Amino acid sequence: MDPRVEEHARILVDWSTDIQRDDDVVLSAGPDAHELLVALERELGTRGANPITLYSSDEASRAYLKAHDGDFSLPEHTLALYEACDAALHIRSDANLAALNDVPGKTLAARSRVTKPIIEERLSKRWCLTQHPTNAHAQNADLSLAAYRDFVYGAILRDWAAVEERQEELRKRLDAADEVRVVAGETDVQMSVDGMHAINSSGRHNMPSGEVFTAPIPDSVEGTVHFDKPLIHQGRQMEGVRLRFADGVVVDSAAERNEEALDDLLDTDEGARRLGELGIGTNREIDRFTKNMLFDEKMGETVHLALGRAYDANVGEGRTGNDSAVHVDMILDTSEGRIEFDGEVVQEGGRFVWE
Amino acid sequence: MDPRVEEHARILVDWSTDIQRDDDVVLSAGPDAHELLVALERELGTRGANPITLYSSDEASRAYLKAHDGDFSLPEHTLALYEACDAALHIRSDANLAALNDVPGKTLAARSRVTKPIIEERLSKRWCLTQHPTNAHAQNADLSLAAYRDFVYGAILRDWAAVEERQEELRKRLDAADEVRVVAGETDVQMSVDGMHAINSSGRHNMPSGEVFTAPIPDSVEGTVHFDKPLIHQGRQMEGVRLRFADGVVVDSAAERNEEALDDLLDTDEGARRLGELGIGTNREIDRFTKNMLFDEKMGETVHLALGRAYDANVGEGRTGNDSAVHVDMILDTSEGRIEFDGEVVQEGGRFVWE
Repeated sequence: MDPRVEEHARILVDWSTDIQRDDDVVLSAGPDAHELLVALERELGTRGANPITLYSSDEASRAYLKAHDGDFSLPEHTLALYEACDAALHIRSDANLAALNDVPGKTLAARSRVTKPIIEERLSKRWCLTQHPTNAHAQNADLSLAAYRDFVYGAILRDWAAVEERQEELRKRLDAADEVRVVAGETDVQMSVDGMHAINSSGRHNMPSGEVFTAPIPDSVEGTVHFDKPLIHQGRQMEGVRLRFADGVVVDSAAERNEEALDDLLDTDEGARRLGELGIGTNREIDRFTKNMLFDEKMGETVHLALGRAYDANVGEGRTGNDSAVHVDMILDTSEGRIEFDGEVVQEGGRFVWE
Repeated sequence: MDPRVEEHARILVDWSTDIQRDDDVVLSAGPDAHELLVALERELGTRGANPITLYSSDEASRAYLKAHDGDFSLPEHTLALYEACDAALHIRSDANLAALNDVPGKTLAARSRVTKPIIEERLSKRWCLTQHPTNAHAQNADLSLAAYRDFVYGAILRDWAAVEERQEELRKRLDAADEVRVVAGETDVQMSVDGMHAINSSGRHNMPSGEVFTAPIPDSVEGTVHFDKPLIHQGRQMEGVRLRFADGVVVDSAAERNEEALDDLLDTDEGARRLGELGIGTNREIDRFTKNMLFDEKMGETVHLALGRAYDANVGEGRTGNDSAVHVDMILDTSEGRIEFDGEVVQEGGRFVWE
């Protein structure tokens, strides 16, 4: 076995989810992640924890969703599983990123609404999302599998305690800020983050990580954003997304590619038209866009904004975060723009002022 | 997709587990059963049921078990999953039947003891065990994959209502019997089944099926049995097993091959030394031994006896069935022997007297 797979497993079990004896752990992966699953089972066995592994397959989901009449009910057994678990690890390992492309967006959105309590339950536990390199993800990144493996493990096999320490200055400043403004290309957007908690993301919930993020006050977002990087939601790729916000709500939207997917996303529920997250990427080890949000949003010199659900951990006392069945991140390049906290420039031309 | 895979899925969902709208269903399979999983997801979607699929891999289990110190705890999340489900389908689809061979039998037995409540919970639901043809199972049967597929689907794609009807005469007679005696080769064993319920097994819990079975009174088994067909328990193959029973307990045991595995099995717990099942195979579509109990025990002109747990459904009012963490079937050929109920011959030379 590639020793990097084993090191990845150790990081997930020790740093990301801090697995202890008798912890009940839910793993979720596709067959292409078999090696990582074997490595994880070994690490979990060593620690005396109890794994159960869910078989994740978009091809199987497609067969299910296309056959269903759309009147979904909550899978109570799946909810019970997550209620009773201590930690959950989801391993992205798709065999074909287009597998859901012919499932109607409305079907996907209806299913998301019904299964929302399961997502919420999972997010209330120690949880982590990670990546196993597969041919499908490599192809999507325009890389050979060998080169993609180097990219993935380069981003993951790091000293995460050191990353956490380096990000602390940004977290403190964002946490103290009331207003955030981002100016870059066609983008000029501002929002209040007053009373919200900024979080230093250093590989607990996302592996790889490398970002500091918070939640906007839902009604406060004003301005225009042009997301110049492609994004994929439920297997559908959108490009050149433009959104105009007034009183926190998307009042104008357009996409250069796949506008229908954007419309379906915005129509999921009321919260899908508001922002739930503002994130600032810091990870300069991620040196290229790979059309995979888990990596792209962590890239240094970028900002990402998410339509949909806010993370509870960002929402301060007496504050309300945005609520929705979805959480969809969109990225913009700030390498030639600037970020301001309360009118003060904190990043310009991609460099933080304290660097 | 091979249309036989789709037909198999329909039989499992309609005949075996009678899936209804909103049923919460647990599927369990290895990656080699991917096609059948896709077909099952389609059938479950059509019926508006809710699937969750567990990733079953002996290679992953081996990594876990070998790393563990042996002081296992009950996976509460897995128990919660089965408690909350309506039906469970386990699909045998191994990639390597020797994958657990270097795990100590004591480790496997210790794990079985701890996870017993999960097995019991699953058996309290609508459940079915079935087979997807893989190269590992084909090789184990000394068949090419194509020939093994023909064998598997020949045994499975049948009119199960008609099978059920044909088996009813045997069920009635076994249900009414007090004493059963089996004489074949070196075997001469008798036991009481007084007050126990005989069950007509026609594809609800095992697919394929084709047997009538009951539970012995645990203390009543007397005599000697020579199992002339190989058997596999937790990946370990035993051959030529001989057992002598007195007052229901195994007092002498030997195996021509892998006696250590037999000893580990018998030492699992107290109930592992007593019989939990007497079954009579009726399925003449299964025309060869394939070293796979799901098929072998259903073969016409055979009897099987199981060490370990009795099925609750066999145990009559005021009766006690055998209890254990294990249930291990062993087969003997009756094609040149005879079966007696209360001193009356019901099968001789492999033919039932009413045939």
